Order: sequence, then C-alpha cells, then structure tokens
Amino acid sequence: MDGGAKVEFWFDFASTYSYLTAMRIGDLAAQEGVGVTWKPFLLGPVFMQQGWRDSPFNIYPAKGAYMWRDMARIAGERKLAFVKPGIFPQKSLLAARTGLVGEGADWLAPFCIGVFRAAFEDDQDISNPEILTALLEGLGVDATAVLDLANAPENKTRLRQRGERAQELGIFGAPSLIADGELFWGDDRLEQAIRWAQRGRSGRN
Amino acid sequence: MDGGAKVEFWFDFASTYSYLTAMRIGDLAAQEGVGVTWKPFLLGPVFMQQGWRDSPFNIYPAKGAYMWRDMARIAGERKLAFVKPGIFPQKSLLAARTGLVGEGADWLAPFCIGVFRAAFEDDQDISNPEILTALLEGLGVDATAVLDLANAPENKTRLRQRGERAQELGIFGAPSLIADGELFWGDDRLEQAIRWAQRGRSGRN
Repeated sequence: MDGGAKVEFWFDFASTYSYLTAMRIGDLAAQEGVGVTWKPFLLGPVFMQQGWRDSPFNIYPAKGAYMWRDMARIAGERKLAFVKPGIFPQKSLLAARTGLVGEGADWLAPFCIGVFRAAFEDDQDISNPEILTALLEGLGVDATAVLDLANAPENKTRLRQRGERAQELGIFGAPSLIADGELFWGDDRLEQAIRWAQRGRSGRN
Repeated sequence: MDGGAKVEFWFDFASTYSYLTAMRIGDLAAQEGVGVTWKPFLLGPVFMQQGWRDSPFNIYPAKGAYMWRDMARIAGERKLAFVKPGIFPQKSLLAARTGLVGEGADWLAPFCIGVFRAAFEDDQDISNPEILTALLEGLGVDATAVLDLANAPENKTRLRQRGERAQELGIFGAPSLIADGELFWGDDRLEQAIRWAQRGRSGRN
C-alpha cells in the first residue's frame, strides 16, 4: 500500500460506533484499494476537554437511549452479534496501550477486532489482562512481552501523545477517519472517507 | 398515501443537517412509495433541557468546525448551493409558526424548502416577515392571512405543544425521523428510516 490511498481509523475500544466501523473497515477499504491504519486512542481526555466527565451517552439520557436503539437496529441490519454491555463505557486504557504496541504488526487489526467483539458481543471486561492475553495468544503473539511493552513508561507517554495528536487533528469523538488530511466523524461517514482517500490519490475533482 | 407507509420529518429551520434532509426527502420518499409529514419544531427548548443555551456547534468549537466542513463536503457531493450563514443559529421561531399553519396544505413542503434555501443558500434572515411573505406569495398563498394565523395565540401554544411532543418521542436533535414508531436521528439515517417505514407496512422481518 506504500504511496497508495490510505485512511486512518481513530477509535476507542469502549466506543459503540467504533465497533461498527472496526467490523467492516478492513473489507470495505480493501475492496476499494485503500489501506487502513488503525489508531487506538482514548476518548476520555477528549471528552474532558469538552467538560464531560463521562460518556455523553450517559450524561444526556435521550441521546443515550437513542444510541442503544440505533446500535441494535444497525447491528440487526448488518447481522452483527451486538449486545448492550453491562457497564458502559468500559475502561479501554490497557487495550489501547496494547494496540499501540501492535502498530505496524500484522496482528494489530485482528487483535482490535477481537477486543471489540469481546466488549460488544461477549460483554467481557476488556480491562482484564487475561482477556487480552487470550486474544494475543490466539494470534500467535507473545502476550507477556507485549503486555510488558504496553505498560512501559514510554508507551504510556506515547498514548498520551496520541491523545494530544487527536485534538490537534480536531477529533472530538470516535470513530474518526482521516483521509487525505480531512476529518470524518462517525461510522456513517466511512464510505465517504474512503472515497475521499481515493480522490486524494488521483487529484481532487 | 392513506394507510400507506409514512415517515415524519421533524426539523428546525435553523438546523444545517435539516436543510440537507429537506432538499432530498421528498424525491427519495416518493421513489420508495413512502409519504412524508413535515413537522417543524424548535430545537431551543430541547437544547435547554440538555443544559445548552446555544447550539452545541457553538458551545463545542471542535464539533462546530467539523460540522461546517462536513456540510461543505456533503453539499459539494450533492451539488447543493450551501453557504455558511453569517449568523448561526438563525431565529427560526416565525418560520416554524408559519410552517405549523401550513400543515395539511400543499404549500407546506415547498414553503419549507424555500425557507431552508433562503437560510442556507442565500444567507437571508428567515426571521424577517418580508422574506416569508415573498416565499408564501410565490406559492400563491395569502401571506397576510397565514402570518396572522402564525402569530395567533393558539398557534403559539400549538408550537409549544409540538416541542413537548418532540421530547416525549425522545427527540434530542434535528433532523429526526419517525417511521413506524421508531426514532432516527440525522440526515445520514434517512434511507434507513424510509426502509423502516416500508417494512412496518409489510410486517417486520
């Protein structure tokens, strides 16, 4: 994919709509000849910046009630095994740090999909290292080594920098997609972001 | 359309994404054999309920900056003559009251489209009765009579009740679509709402 069209997929493992995108971005982008860079980050600091100490879906009940119904309908249409998790939002810190370690590795995308399915299909606690260990081992990865790197100070710093970068890019929610320098927000903008990535490569119309 | 599939289109004349839906819902729904009921209401009281004294696009700058770019991109793709208005949000009270008077009349949909175009293509002040008068007269409607009815106490009460009904329905933003008792939020949910209206008629799958 070097030099080809690319889209960056910025997501938080606790984000419902990020789950929707994670479950389809790989196939959709591949069909269109667009490469995907998976960019785990944390929404918490972004929300704090907006004065929210919790998910807006918890702060604003009407918005939250709508989101769960919207998710159920979309999952139904896409034949996804989505369930409303017992606790929302989940603590996604360790999963995000682990994802950061996987950048550039073949296991990153399947690991991320595995975490999202654990969270939103099996309602498992993704802050539990055992869950992440099982996912990593299932992908043939040395889980102990990866989790050690995930918890190393320099990796914690990298995740904080990733969050600062998100805000520099104007990101205020997830999923966010960056294509040819443009920001797109929401699973419903995925097709448009992929078109934009393709256009960027061949010259803007 | 009696007994046929129907979708309710709830909108505020000051809402950018409502403009997008207004410009396409008529044709799209007609193609699919679905009737549209235009439901003007005011977002202000809904936002107040959520603790916002202004548009969230003004309160949250990153969200606002994104929305204007998103609108420009979508308008570009749809060949719409959208311009960012000088003042946002506009005062949509008089236009909403006028729309309420038009319910059931043939002039309602073209009037609403005219108001949206005045607001978002020509950057005209839609709180100015002269703008609304010109639109009504262009549709062969007795503008003086309609504006008198718009400003009558019972019509003001009806608009307040409309807002209360919006909140009962779980509406928290605009555009909102109601199809077969289900709430859909956002221009990007229009196709899904129309599918839902069709399915409701023929039995849920």
